[in-house]
This record gives sequence, C-alpha cells and structure tokens, in this order.
Amino acid sequence: MVVAISQLNLKIADFEANGQKIIEQIGLASAQGADLIVFPELAIGGLPALDFLKSSTFLQSVDKAIKQLVSHCSIDCVIGVPYFDSQSQELYNAALFIKGKEITKIIKKASLRRSGEILETAYFTPGSGAEVISSQGRRFILSVGDDFKTLEDDADFIISLNSNPFSYLEHAERVEALRHYSRETGTAVFNVNQVGAQGSLIFDGRSVIVDESRSFLDELNAFAEDLRLYQIKDKEIKPLQLKQTEASFSEPALIYQALVLGIRDYFSKNGFKKALIGLSGGLDSALVGALACEALGAENVKGILMPSMYSTDHSLKDAIDLANNLSCEYEIVPIKEGFDVFVRMLEPIFKGAPEDVTEQNIQARVRAVILMAISNKQGYIVLNTSNKSEAAMGYGTLYGDLIGSLSVLGDVYKTQVVEVAKYINREREIIPTNTIVKPPSAELSPGQKDSDSIPLYDVLDPILFQLIEKGLSGQEVIDRGHDETEVKRVLQIMSKVGFKLFQTPPALRVSPRAFGSGFQLPLVAKFTSS
Amino acid sequence: MVVAISQLNLKIADFEANGQKIIEQIGLASAQGADLIVFPELAIGGLPALDFLKSSTFLQSVDKAIKQLVSHCSIDCVIGVPYFDSQSQELYNAALFIKGKEITKIIKKASLRRSGEILETAYFTPGSGAEVISSQGRRFILSVGDDFKTLEDDADFIISLNSNPFSYLEHAERVEALRHYSRETGTAVFNVNQVGAQGSLIFDGRSVIVDESRSFLDELNAFAEDLRLYQIKDKEIKPLQLKQTEASFSEPALIYQALVLGIRDYFSKNGFKKALIGLSGGLDSALVGALACEALGAENVKGILMPSMYSTDHSLKDAIDLANNLSCEYEIVPIKEGFDVFVRMLEPIFKGAPEDVTEQNIQARVRAVILMAISNKQGYIVLNTSNKSEAAMGYGTLYGDLIGSLSVLGDVYKTQVVEVAKYINREREIIPTNTIVKPPSAELSPGQKDSDSIPLYDVLDPILFQLIEKGLSGQEVIDRGHDETEVKRVLQIMSKVGFKLFQTPPALRVSPRAFGSGFQLPLVAKFTSS
Repeated sequence: MVVAISQLNLKIADFEANGQKIIEQIGLASAQGADLIVFPELAIGGLPALDFLKSSTFLQSVDKAIKQLVSHCSIDCVIGVPYFDSQSQELYNAALFIKGKEITKIIKKASLRRSGEILETAYFTPGSGAEVISSQGRRFILSVGDDFKTLEDDADFIISLNSNPFSYLEHAERVEALRHYSRETGTAVFNVNQVGAQGSLIFDGRSVIVDESRSFLDELNAFAEDLRLYQIKDKEIKPLQLKQTEASFSEPALIYQALVLGIRDYFSKNGFKKALIGLSGGLDSALVGALACEALGAENVKGILMPSMYSTDHSLKDAIDLANNLSCEYEIVPIKEGFDVFVRMLEPIFKGAPEDVTEQNIQARVRAVILMAISNKQGYIVLNTSNKSEAAMGYGTLYGDLIGSLSVLGDVYKTQVVEVAKYINREREIIPTNTIVKPPSAELSPGQKDSDSIPLYDVLDPILFQLIEKGLSGQEVIDRGHDETEVKRVLQIMSKVGFKLFQTPPALRVSPRAFGSGFQLPLVAKFTSS
Repeated sequence: MVVAISQLNLKIADFEANGQKIIEQIGLASAQGADLIVFPELAIGGLPALDFLKSSTFLQSVDKAIKQLVSHCSIDCVIGVPYFDSQSQELYNAALFIKGKEITKIIKKASLRRSGEILETAYFTPGSGAEVISSQGRRFILSVGDDFKTLEDDADFIISLNSNPFSYLEHAERVEALRHYSRETGTAVFNVNQVGAQGSLIFDGRSVIVDESRSFLDELNAFAEDLRLYQIKDKEIKPLQLKQTEASFSEPALIYQALVLGIRDYFSKNGFKKALIGLSGGLDSALVGALACEALGAENVKGILMPSMYSTDHSLKDAIDLANNLSCEYEIVPIKEGFDVFVRMLEPIFKGAPEDVTEQNIQARVRAVILMAISNKQGYIVLNTSNKSEAAMGYGTLYGDLIGSLSVLGDVYKTQVVEVAKYINREREIIPTNTIVKPPSAELSPGQKDSDSIPLYDVLDPILFQLIEKGLSGQEVIDRGHDETEVKRVLQIMSKVGFKLFQTPPALRVSPRAFGSGFQLPLVAKFTSS
C-alpha cells in the first residue's frame, strides 16, 4: 500500500482556503496511487486557535469543514481536528480516521501539552490516547503527539500527528528520540508535523519517517509545504520519489530560514504587504532589513534613517550602504529638531535638572513617532529590531525602539544575530562588514557603548542561555563555571526589567523558551532568581 | 473548639515578610483562644506565581518557609502551599494540615483551574482531592477549591481554601452556590479566600462562612485583611466577635474599591510611590486621577494637562477644576509646538498628502513622549486611562494614549466609568459635573466625538458585555434583541483591532473576562466572530 504524508501551511480559522488545499492534496496523492493520506495535528481549525476554541461559531465551522472533507475523501485519510463531543460537551484534540467516506475512528489525545505557548490543557479535555486503525488490511497505531509511547500493541507502523514549533535546539533531539523508540520497539514511525508561521510560533515541517530496523530515515521539507509518498511492503518503507539530499542546516541557517518564513507568513496571513524599518547603521536593524527584503521583496521594504546629534558618521554611511546592497528604498529624517523641541517644552518642568537617561529616551521616542507616522500615512507595518539579549537586560526604550507590530529578533541573542548576519554574507557582502565588526552602541549619548551598561555579549549570552533556555538557577549557572560577579549582575538587572516585557511586540520564536507566552512572570512580586 | 479564619494580603515570593505575617496571625488567634487557624490557597509562595513555580530556587524557599511555619504552629493550622513531591517530581496545589508541630496531612487539589488567568493546569499535577482531617476530636473535610463537592463523607464541617479573583459579577453567585450546597448536604462551609491585588488580579477577600441549616451566614472584610474566630459547638457555628453590618455593595462601589486596592497594591508591592496621569478634561482620566489620589494620597499624584489646538476651552478648565478638587499637583504643557515640528520633519516624505488619522496619532504620541519624559526624570509611574469599550474598539493610539505601566480602567466599560464617577461624587462634587455629562471626545480633530467612529456607549457596552463576558456569538447577541446592524458593526471593528491588545499595559481585572490573559486570540488568523 502507499501512504502519503502531507505537510501543509494553513491559516488559523480560514476554513474555506484550508479545506480547498486539503482536498487538493487528497486528489494529488490519490492520482499518484496513495491509499492513505495523513495530515498533521489540528490541521482543521489551525493552531494555536486559542480562545476561538471556546466559540460556538468556530466549532460549528470546524464541524462543517469536517463534513465537507469526509465527502471528498476518495482515499483513506487521517487528519487532526478539535473534536467537540456534543454528548459530554467536552472538547478533544483528536485525530479522525476517515474510510469509505465515513469517520470510522476518533482518537483523542491524552498527553496534552501544558507549556505557555501551546496551552492544550487550557482548552482540551484529555482523551484516552492512541488506538489501532486498519487501512488496506494493515494495522497502524494512530496517535496525536506522543501518546503512542504508552500503547502496547504489535502493529508495525505508527502514525503520529504533531505540531512541534521550531527551535534551533529541538529537532535533532526529536529525531534522536524517534530513532531510539523505533530501535527499541522494532516499529516504524510516520511523524507528521505542521509547517508555517502562526504569529510568534513557527512550525518547521521536517516531518520524520523513521524505521531503525531497516536504517531508514527520511525528512520532508524544512520550512516549506511538502507531499511525499511511501510504499509499504511487508514491514518495509520505501519512498516513491527520491529526495534531493539537503545540506544539514547550521544553527544560523536554521534561524535565518525560520525568521524569513515568520515575517513572510505574518504579512501574507494578515494581508499586509509593506514593512518599515528604522535603520540605525547598527547590526540588529541591518539584519531585520535583510530578512524583510528576503521575505517580502526589496520593493516592499523601506528603511528610515534617523540620525541624531550623537550618531557617528559611519552610522549613516553604513545604513545607506545596506539599503543600497539590498536595493530597498530609504529616507533620511534627522531627529535633532524634534529632540530640541521636547527639551524646550519640558524646560519649565525640568528646570535645568542634569541630563540623564530621560534625554536618551526622548531620542528613541522621537524616532518612534516618526516611524509610526509614516506607517499610518503610507500603510507600512513597523518591524521591531531589538534582540533577546537587550530584552533580557531591559536595554531599550518602551514606546521608543521597542515599538513595532512584530519583533523579528526578540528571541535571537546578539551573538546569534552576528552569526546570522555572517550567514547572509556567506557569498557576498550584503550587510556591511563595518556594521558587523563595530562595537554595539545605541548612540544616544556621546561615545556610548552597550558594554557601558550591560556585560559584553560574549559573556552575557551564554549566561542568559543557561538561565532562560536551560532553566537553571543563578547558583547552578555559577557552578557550571560562569563568573559569579557577572551572573549576579545579570540576575540583578533582569529582576528590574520584567515589566517592559509586558508591552513589547510579539516576537518570532526560535528558541525553546522565548520571552512572551513562553516566559510568564508575575507582574508584582519580590524577585526570585529564575 | 474555636476556628480562626485569616484572610491575608501577601506578596508573591516575599517569603520573609509573608512568613512573619502568618506567624503573627497564629499568635493573635491563639491568644484569643483559637484551636485551629485556616489560611487561604497558596498562602505560601503567593498567587499567581507563574513560572516561579518552575524555579528550583523558588521551590526551595517554599520548603524553607513551610519548615519555619511548622516550627511556630502552637495551634493546629491549615494553609495552602505549592507542594513539590520529591519522589514523584510532581508539583501540587496543596493544603497542609499541621498538628503538634508536624505536617500530618497533605491534601492535593484535584479540580485544577484552566482559565487564562489562573492557569493551574500549566503548573500543577492534579491530586486526589479533598480528605478528612481531625482537629480537637472533630472531623473536617479539607479541600482546596471545590474538591469537597465530590467527596462523600458525613463530616459536619468543610474547610475550603480558595483564591477567587474579584469580579463585579461572581461573588453573589459564589455565595448562592455555597448556600445551596450547605442546604442540600446539611454541612457548614468555611470558604477562605485571598485578599489583595497581585498585578492585574484583584482578590476581594470576603471569605464566606455558611451554615444554611441554622441560617448562619458571615463574611469577612471586603478588599481588606481580616481575622475572625468562630466557636463550634456540636454542629453550630457562632462568631466570637460581632461584626458591624456592612452596607451591601453596589456594582460601582465594588469596582471603586477594587480599583483603589489594585492601584495601591501595585505601587506598594513594587516599591513605587508616585503616579503621573495625563489629564485631558475627559472622564476617563478624571476617574483615574480620583482613584489614584484615594489609593496613593493626593501628594503622590501629578496631573499633566496637554492641550492641543483642538482642545476645547472647557477641557482645560475641567481638568484644572478636577486637580483643585483633588488637591493634587498639576502642570500644563501645550503640545502644538511638538506637533508642528513633526509635521515639518515629515513634510519631505508626506509631500502634501491630506490630513488623516496620522495627524491625530501624532498628537497622542507627542503627549506620550512628554509623560514618559517626566516619568523618567522625576520618578513617576504613568497610569493608563483608557477604558474597556475603547480597547474593544481599538479606539486609542498605540504608543500614544495607550501607554502606561498599569491600565486602571482597561476592564471597565465606559458606562461603568460614568457610574463609578457618580459614586465618587455621591457626597460632594469631586469629578466636575461637566466632565461627566459632556459627550465623550478624543479632541484630536475639530469637533470630533467618539460617536463619529464607534457606536454610542449606551448601545455598544451591552453588546460588548454579551460578546465578551457572556461569551455569546454575534448571532446569539442579535437573537437576544440587540440591533443587528450595530452588532455586526461591533464585530467588524473588533476583528481588526486585536493586535493592539498585544501591546497595551496590563489592566486591573474587575470583570469575569478581561482583555489580556483572559482573552487569548491568535495573532494571525482569519477572523471568526467570538
């Protein structure tokens, strides 16, 4: 028999377009000889649908979409749906098995995720887990997520529907775990994943088909839709098409692709077209500019250069070089006049008080007013350019450089920003080398450097990674050999800046733990080191 | 025997101060003859502690605090804690029963909440629920939350530890449910609740002691700490002190008290002192000013009046009248100069494009820059003044009037704002009458009124209430007699403004469903009517 794996990029709640896409895939697979087609977890309705799952209108649309799909199932079909049991009035994260244009089995996920980002426990009732289905006389264990691990059965094949968000760490671990499972149990696993960005969450596809007993391992496309067919003969899996070998992806390459997809889907799924970016001449905004041009086309990206009295000469030049390298439009709006007028308006209140961070923030906020005005008048969407290291240190101005509809780098550490920039420059200089090598500076006061206020990024980022991604306590990070003074300084700074995270734009997530929904701290508390 | 109920206002993770307070209460209760003292759910550690619950440092501090408490328990004690079972490595929402300076029972909550705001399922493992404990030879069913409802036992008394956030709707329902339960089962219930604001969440206290078979009903203080003792004789409960009869609270009075407590605790628990408010002469900012003066003292509140070229004469006068009535400091900073300079700076880019919402937003953002500059320079915390009706309609400027550390009225509909203002004026005019009666206007263009852009608040608010608090679909709201055209218009506007909600300040929650954590919509989706 032939099994088709369909990895689609769907839009939450867009029942009509999604339904059409799904039915097309069934037709394509069937034409190529497939007997059974498999779609990912929650392919109908989309994920994360959040409070839509509480709406009767939404659930009625799901029901309609299921009925429509069933009537078009010319071959056997497995698909993930939110399933509302009208008898018990409970909602399940379920997999439907459709055979002969009838739903013959509803498998309800047991091991619901309860992480901050995909909060299944907040919406779904736990079900009874994996069960066996039969297609073409062959038995398959059907599972949503990892439920199959707790079902004992001698079926040779497992179909597991998934929606694993991308992070630059988890995919290799996941493949390793599947290989281990396959080796231990002698079963083959079809692990089908979502693809596409849904706001902050990016799904990377890379559905995995693994049969360790025959040393078989195949992966569907990374960050793109895919449909692949596999012939099953006895216990053996054979792909019907030969896939071109893909280079194994480096971390910067993965992050690059994830961010490009994240920007592209955010715009296309929202019906937005044009992006506006404040280009400072610094590395973060240069990288966002390059990513936006790749995602949206340079003709849809405009850079705004807003030099202040403290901007160095090279900043303007570096920003212009970048815009020229990218072939994107740019405008120059010096901010001194705006800054001066606020200083003058506030003079009767400040009465000669010495300059401090206030004046720096005014500069950042004047730039924000300019960006938002151009956005409002000309229909651009402002992209935020601050990075995860800055976010952790509160190094940024609320309503200033922290504005924007989407934060592109909010989950990318500064040291990773450098690596991604170098990856972009791997064939030719797109991001000016000077932008990459010069010491990071906000240029809000004369001669200012980031390292005046926060640890050097080479020291800071590994500490943050241990605290955030690895979830270690300060003492544990020190015990692993990081400098005690620096660790304590980092914790001290972090303890005071949490409040800013409540008002920053949603950030594309590329790590296992992003600020935002992945990082839920009390708004009011005595600080405890994380 | 004598049972003491202690309703405390604690700070999340402040183990030392909380521990001292708890031990003091034990001493006080013991001195008055109590045999058993009862504290609310999660009294140790605090609530919502969110990701602190994932931190080993935090859990170690909990453990230390429990040990210290146990060593001070001169009488029997029941208290809520996050309980980490080191054998199973699971975390429970538990109640400890401490007797003879030993923990003799650990009751683990079964019915975990899974709403957006108190996400117990994201952190705790479900336990086995209520059990019976024995104090002074008397049997009590001990329960965290509503677990007691599923335990069958003939004990005469139920102790239920709770942490129910305030809403202007739920308390009466809760008391009614407890009375019903007590009537049906013949048992008496000690329902012990948290008090105090924890960021957005406000706990209103009002612990309820109910014994329907003897028509006994008592309530602890609303919005304040309390310690009350009850004598149990046979099956009868008698309070040891007579409580002054409190007037039954009207909805505006409840909202007023909740917001005052919310502001006060936000400031005191964060170590903040002074609040800054942009006073427009309109009702929302006037109410926030009055609430802040009540919460923090007028000497800690400063109003900033920022008239534009479109401000009407009465606006400035109304704002000055308010500041004088409140005896709070104020400053006047006209914004025309700031507005003009942005128009001039942007002229080369806008090239004579007609005026539109851009120019209105510039005014709002110039005001934001001024408020934030004064905040930065003089150490004030900016309070946001926009209301829930505006939030739902996206009627506000991001990085303009939507700034602030805390949104005071973000969960209060405009029609409720009017009622609370009238409540404040019940004895004398504090908020100028003209401010209450004039038609709401943002005054960002000549002659502008809110009703030019959105439905009249008397029409809008009841529709929003049905859609949001009652969770009805658009069709259901129409079916209940609301005007079809208006309902569809409201849904249409709401569908386009969700993104603003991702960047507005956290709002004090007074309804069953606030924007923010109580309202989780996908960032990217095809809209479905809620």
